[in-house]
Amino acid sequence: MTAAEQLRNEQAAFVAAVAGELTDFLTSRQSVMSAISPDIEPIMGSISNLVTGGKRLRALMCYWGWRGAGGESGAQQVVTAGAALELFQAAALIHDDIIDRSDTRRGGPSVHRRFSQLHGTHGWALDSERFGQAAAILTGDLCLSFSEEAFTDIGERAAAGSRARLIFNLMRAEVMAGQYLDILEEVAGPVRDRAGAVSRAQSIIRFKSAKYSTEHPLALGGALAGASNELLRGYSAFALPLGEAFQLRDDVLGVFGDPLTTGKPAGDDLREGKRTVLVALALDQASAAESAFIDARLGSPDLTDEDIREIRRIIEESGALQATEVLINEFGEAAFDALEMLPLDDLPKTALRRLAEATVSRAS
Amino acid sequence: MTAAEQLRNEQAAFVAAVAGELTDFLTSRQSVMSAISPDIEPIMGSISNLVTGGKRLRALMCYWGWRGAGGESGAQQVVTAGAALELFQAAALIHDDIIDRSDTRRGGPSVHRRFSQLHGTHGWALDSERFGQAAAILTGDLCLSFSEEAFTDIGERAAAGSRARLIFNLMRAEVMAGQYLDILEEVAGPVRDRAGAVSRAQSIIRFKSAKYSTEHPLALGGALAGASNELLRGYSAFALPLGEAFQLRDDVLGVFGDPLTTGKPAGDDLREGKRTVLVALALDQASAAESAFIDARLGSPDLTDEDIREIRRIIEESGALQATEVLINEFGEAAFDALEMLPLDDLPKTALRRLAEATVSRAS
Repeated sequence: MTAAEQLRNEQAAFVAAVAGELTDFLTSRQSVMSAISPDIEPIMGSISNLVTGGKRLRALMCYWGWRGAGGESGAQQVVTAGAALELFQAAALIHDDIIDRSDTRRGGPSVHRRFSQLHGTHGWALDSERFGQAAAILTGDLCLSFSEEAFTDIGERAAAGSRARLIFNLMRAEVMAGQYLDILEEVAGPVRDRAGAVSRAQSIIRFKSAKYSTEHPLALGGALAGASNELLRGYSAFALPLGEAFQLRDDVLGVFGDPLTTGKPAGDDLREGKRTVLVALALDQASAAESAFIDARLGSPDLTDEDIREIRRIIEESGALQATEVLINEFGEAAFDALEMLPLDDLPKTALRRLAEATVSRAS
Repeated sequence: MTAAEQLRNEQAAFVAAVAGELTDFLTSRQSVMSAISPDIEPIMGSISNLVTGGKRLRALMCYWGWRGAGGESGAQQVVTAGAALELFQAAALIHDDIIDRSDTRRGGPSVHRRFSQLHGTHGWALDSERFGQAAAILTGDLCLSFSEEAFTDIGERAAAGSRARLIFNLMRAEVMAGQYLDILEEVAGPVRDRAGAVSRAQSIIRFKSAKYSTEHPLALGGALAGASNELLRGYSAFALPLGEAFQLRDDVLGVFGDPLTTGKPAGDDLREGKRTVLVALALDQASAAESAFIDARLGSPDLTDEDIREIRRIIEESGALQATEVLINEFGEAAFDALEMLPLDDLPKTALRRLAEATVSRAS
């Protein structure tokens, strides 16, 4: 077996083990929930559906962080940690989609839309949209509790006061804070100083995405395997810029991505009013008239295709797209340089390099 | 010192210790959050504000459950458990108020209203109501995570696989399921069979309230102190009917309560469309025309004072109010009878009796 095959096999085995763990976990909770009422089924179905798909980026970062720190291949603790991260991500997506009024998720209806549709199908009373949102708030809450249950199932290494527990706690608090800064910037950005907009957008990226999606999961895996503080610092030096590149790529896809590949409508970020680094750079570098055009349309739910094309043109011609691609490259290079410095065995190092490459150059 | 004084002192000391624990907990998290951005302040302020007030019913049930099972007076574990329950309750209230579109909480603005007002005060862009809801979803999520952090801080007795942990997990899952059944009944109730409405309403009460507000907190305290399974069964026989009486009283107050005492607008439950036992009994016992009148108006946001008076009249004259008071008495008596059977020392038994009396006869 070549090294490349070994890596592929080990990673596939881990992904399958996480999927199995999620199925077992949800099956055991299913029996508790259906004892309450069969009416709970759509909640469990929504959670199950969400954790079935996805790139498993966070679980994989955790796994290779574990392996890099000397953790045993395929060990139960890291599989459980991966499942907890996936459940947390599902909860975050459910509430995110309510907040952003996103009707689609991975090409299908988002959870609040599923419940609105259920309302419509059954001809229930009162407002279907309101019901959908309320049900999705509760579904996300349950999923958040489940992620915690799974995390606690890790046992001793994730007990009160453990480094792994502290990382998991910090991850949750920081991503929620980052999401708040994100929605705050949507509404407060237009009246705050424009000079600070790019740096505010970078701070949002760091908390809502880079720390959450790459830095903390990698550190979590490392901490579970007993990594030294020095190794954890090295992990951060790699994963933080990687996560920043990841989110900047996401921002570009949110404006220029192909709906067929991303599973989201074209220009979705613009309709949601996201004031990303890409948008902040465009507002800074475009003409006053063009900036005013963007400012007036960002966050408008009835943005036309024409508007989206025009905003894309401004973002491109102002040089903001190019500048963002430069940033992605810079962060990516910083990440790859830091990775090479890490004292890791070939297998985890190669695995992290592959993950990083896929993350920075992805199209969905 | 008389027994009554001893009880009052011990209970006051516990309540003060929980308040102190909550302050310490939030102060430590405050420093993490303000390192992210000073913009996070309103989130922390909202949580802090919510955990400052309230009746501390759940924390007190937990405490006397602990003491009844032989737990030491004022021990740190039960103080921490009380703080975790209060944080969980705050999270539930934040999301509940979004779901029910309640603009007030304990006489002040609810969290989503606070954020909408912040939006208005600063003249921010886009929609203030939408911003308020989004910010409150995130605030509730953070508070839910905090409750978990506090719970884990209990340490060994709440570790993975402990009875206390299982009770806490079940409590979370059941209250979320119960809240879903509650909003489901608001929309599906009108098209479901009327014959089953009272029993559906009773099931909702059990999960969203009785188990959550009294049964599980009492059992949690007992489990932390190492109660026998027999004692825990005895606790349930007392706390479950008590919680049912508690929620039926809440339902009566939600329709007939004095806004000055409850801190909520008159007839709030009717505007929210809650299909409580009280309402289900009225729909069942009133004339067809009167039932149709209630059905057409329940859940209407523009319910007039006139409508509320008329619905109150129907509920009273149909005998539904009287029948509900009979149920409250029956559940209350079942609870008091079960309490007398419990093998407890005088102090915890008297404390639980007082708590139960206050719960069943409260006016707010």
